[in-house]
Formats: sequence, structure tokens, C-alpha cells
Amino acid sequence: MNQRVYLYSIIDKGYVIEIQFLFLEEIMTSKNNVVWQDLEITREDFGNIIGHNSAVLWLTGLSGSGKSTIAKKLQKKLVSENKMAYVLDGDNVRHGLNQDLGFTEEDRIENIRRISEVAKLLMEAGIIVITAFISPYQKERRRVREKLGHDFVEVYVKCPLEECEKRDPKGLYKKARKGEIPDFTGISSPYEEPENPEIVVDTSNANINQEVTMIYEYLEKKEII
Amino acid sequence: MNQRVYLYSIIDKGYVIEIQFLFLEEIMTSKNNVVWQDLEITREDFGNIIGHNSAVLWLTGLSGSGKSTIAKKLQKKLVSENKMAYVLDGDNVRHGLNQDLGFTEEDRIENIRRISEVAKLLMEAGIIVITAFISPYQKERRRVREKLGHDFVEVYVKCPLEECEKRDPKGLYKKARKGEIPDFTGISSPYEEPENPEIVVDTSNANINQEVTMIYEYLEKKEII
Repeated sequence: MNQRVYLYSIIDKGYVIEIQFLFLEEIMTSKNNVVWQDLEITREDFGNIIGHNSAVLWLTGLSGSGKSTIAKKLQKKLVSENKMAYVLDGDNVRHGLNQDLGFTEEDRIENIRRISEVAKLLMEAGIIVITAFISPYQKERRRVREKLGHDFVEVYVKCPLEECEKRDPKGLYKKARKGEIPDFTGISSPYEEPENPEIVVDTSNANINQEVTMIYEYLEKKEII
Repeated sequence: MNQRVYLYSIIDKGYVIEIQFLFLEEIMTSKNNVVWQDLEITREDFGNIIGHNSAVLWLTGLSGSGKSTIAKKLQKKLVSENKMAYVLDGDNVRHGLNQDLGFTEEDRIENIRRISEVAKLLMEAGIIVITAFISPYQKERRRVREKLGHDFVEVYVKCPLEECEKRDPKGLYKKARKGEIPDFTGISSPYEEPENPEIVVDTSNANINQEVTMIYEYLEKKEII
């Protein structure tokens, strides 16, 4: 990825001579390089710098299903291999960009809309984006898919409600059962399972490293990394 | 930047032996690397991958002052040197993330707030972010500065109103003079000049390459690149 290939066709006295030049990136980027002058910078340029393509891995699943754990493990694996992978989750979105939004249906839709726009910008900047949000509605996820096209990789983090409720890492199910949290996904609000996700990872009893490896191998297969 | 230094202090029989290990990144990133297991990924990790630090260059100035031109030239220079630089401007924000916002004062404030949050996320992902928005109010820019701390580099793209109006690349001043655009900065809405910007570039008659070089040299001086 650190080399570029240029093909010049030179037609001279009836002969077609194809000369293939291989330039090392170092030569390409000499100070008075004209190649960049009239071109807009694209994702491909970032891909050439960093050595991999970008995409949005959209993790969806119940609270407690393991989205964040998988997202962070996968990020670590990718970053340890010098790949630019970034996690978007409640931690860095709810208290920043979406701090003005609550949990009404309207606000939840706007929450996901903005996240998908930010994921798109990060992806355009060359980053492998991993999002970790419940995102329970098919319609919303479909909208994200439409926006991102073939760069959208839907990952269903599958785990039975009973198991998620047993784990209850943040004590949210307990509160929801007491009626302290209205519209809680799985309890008082629906979770619509993905119909045709690119990847399904079952976290009910599997080894989490296996699940991370499965997503990693998908990225390899699709030549994103 | 491709090497990491680890210090281990070993206390043994009263002696403190300090052993300094230098690992090449390649060794660091072997498949069963335990170093990453319990650490959150930070900006520094991305800096180690890509070989430079990140920051937000916040270009502010009148419509037609040359913000976008400078932003894109600077981006090209950085990208041609294998640096990850991304431009946030009206093109990729107004039709996406901020498509729900109009031009009322409230919406303009929300516009800048969201842009600053996105700039922060991109910066945390290791990117050198270059924003190109009029952002006319001191109070708003101050808020962005507070949010981003020392990573915020305010660049005042200075050009007299008369010159901007003469250029009028999008015909907006003409429309504003006719009263077709309400609250147009410089005509019917104020532009509050930055008081202590990190960089001032005068685009009234200077060579644009000189201005780009000035910002580039600032990045070098501050060891961002």
C-alpha cells in the first residue's frame, strides 16, 4: 500500500509502449509534488497512507449483550496491528455531541442519525469505525445502511434477554423492571432483530476472543484490512 | 515514533535495577500481545501509528476570505507527506450532520457546537482536523477553545470586507446587499475579530502558498507534526 503504480501509454511510430513506473511514496511526496495540486483528497488517499481501507462496523444488540466489550477488544486488536480503529459509544457521544438529546422516540432517532453522520465523517477520514449502540429499530438501521452503502457492516451481537438481564452490568434491567426507566429496550420497548446482518456473533456462552476473531476475519475477507 | 520505551523498576535485594526496553513496533504487535489487554486506546496510540500528533485548526473569517482554499491546500500538503489531515466545512457538514439546522442565531450556535464536538472526536481518533467556518462570534469560539484546550489552534483568515465583497465567489454578498440573505456576516450581522488567535494569515494580497506555509510551520514548531 505504500507504493503507487502509474501506467503511461506512449504511442510512438505505431508502437504502443507501456511503461510501468513504480514510485516509492517518499519520491511521490517530494516538496514540489504536482500530483496533489488539482485533486480533492479522498478516502483512498488515507488508505494509501495508513495501509487499510475504512468502514463502519455497526454493532447492534440488547443492553448487556457485549457490544462495548467486543468493540473495544476489536479496536485493540486492530490498533495493535497499526490500524486506525475508533469506537463510537455512549461514553464519547452522549456527553458530547448528543448531550442535548433525551430518550423520547424522536430524540433516539436523532441520536442514531447524528451517530451515523459522524461515523461517515470518520470513515471518510480513513478510520475503521466501530459503533456500539443498542439501535433497536430496523427502520433506523436501514437508514444508516442507505447512507453508508456497502461500507456499512451490520454486526448483530446476539444474546438472549434472560442472559443479558442476569449479567445486568450497569443494574439497568433491575431499574427497568421496577419501572424506574421508561421505554427500556427488551423490557418495555421492543428490540427488532436484524434480518440480514453481515455478521452475527453469539455472546451467550462463546469465548469473546472467538467473536472478535470472527469480525476480524470478515474485515480481512472483504479486504478492508 | 515507531518505538516505545518501557521502564521496569525491579527491586531485588535492596538494589534498584532499572531496565529499559526498546521494542520495535513490529515486536510490540505480535499476535498474542498482552500490552494492549487492559489499556484504553488513546490519541497517543494513534500518534504512534501515524507518526504525528493531532489537533484542531479552527479557521475563522469572513465569507470569501479564503478559509476553504487555505484549508484544502494545507490538507493536500499534509496528506502528500503521509499525514492524516481532514477538512470539515460546509460541504460535508451542512448536508449531513447539520442538515436539520437553519440560520437563526440558535441554529448557528448549535451548528458550531456540533462541529466542535465532531472535530474533537476526529482529533481523538488521531486526525489533524482543519475546520473552515465563518464562526463570527467570539463567545462561541471561546467555548470551542474551552472544550478543546491546548489542542485548539485559532487561525484568523484576515481579509478586508471590501476585498471579500469584490471577490464574492458565490455571489452571496450581492444577494445580501439586495436583502435576499438575512443576517449575512459583514453586511447585516457582525463579524467579531479574534482577540488572541494563535495564527493570523492575511489573504488580502499575499501568496496563498505563503499563508499555508505559515500554518504548516506553526504545526512543526508546536510538534504537532
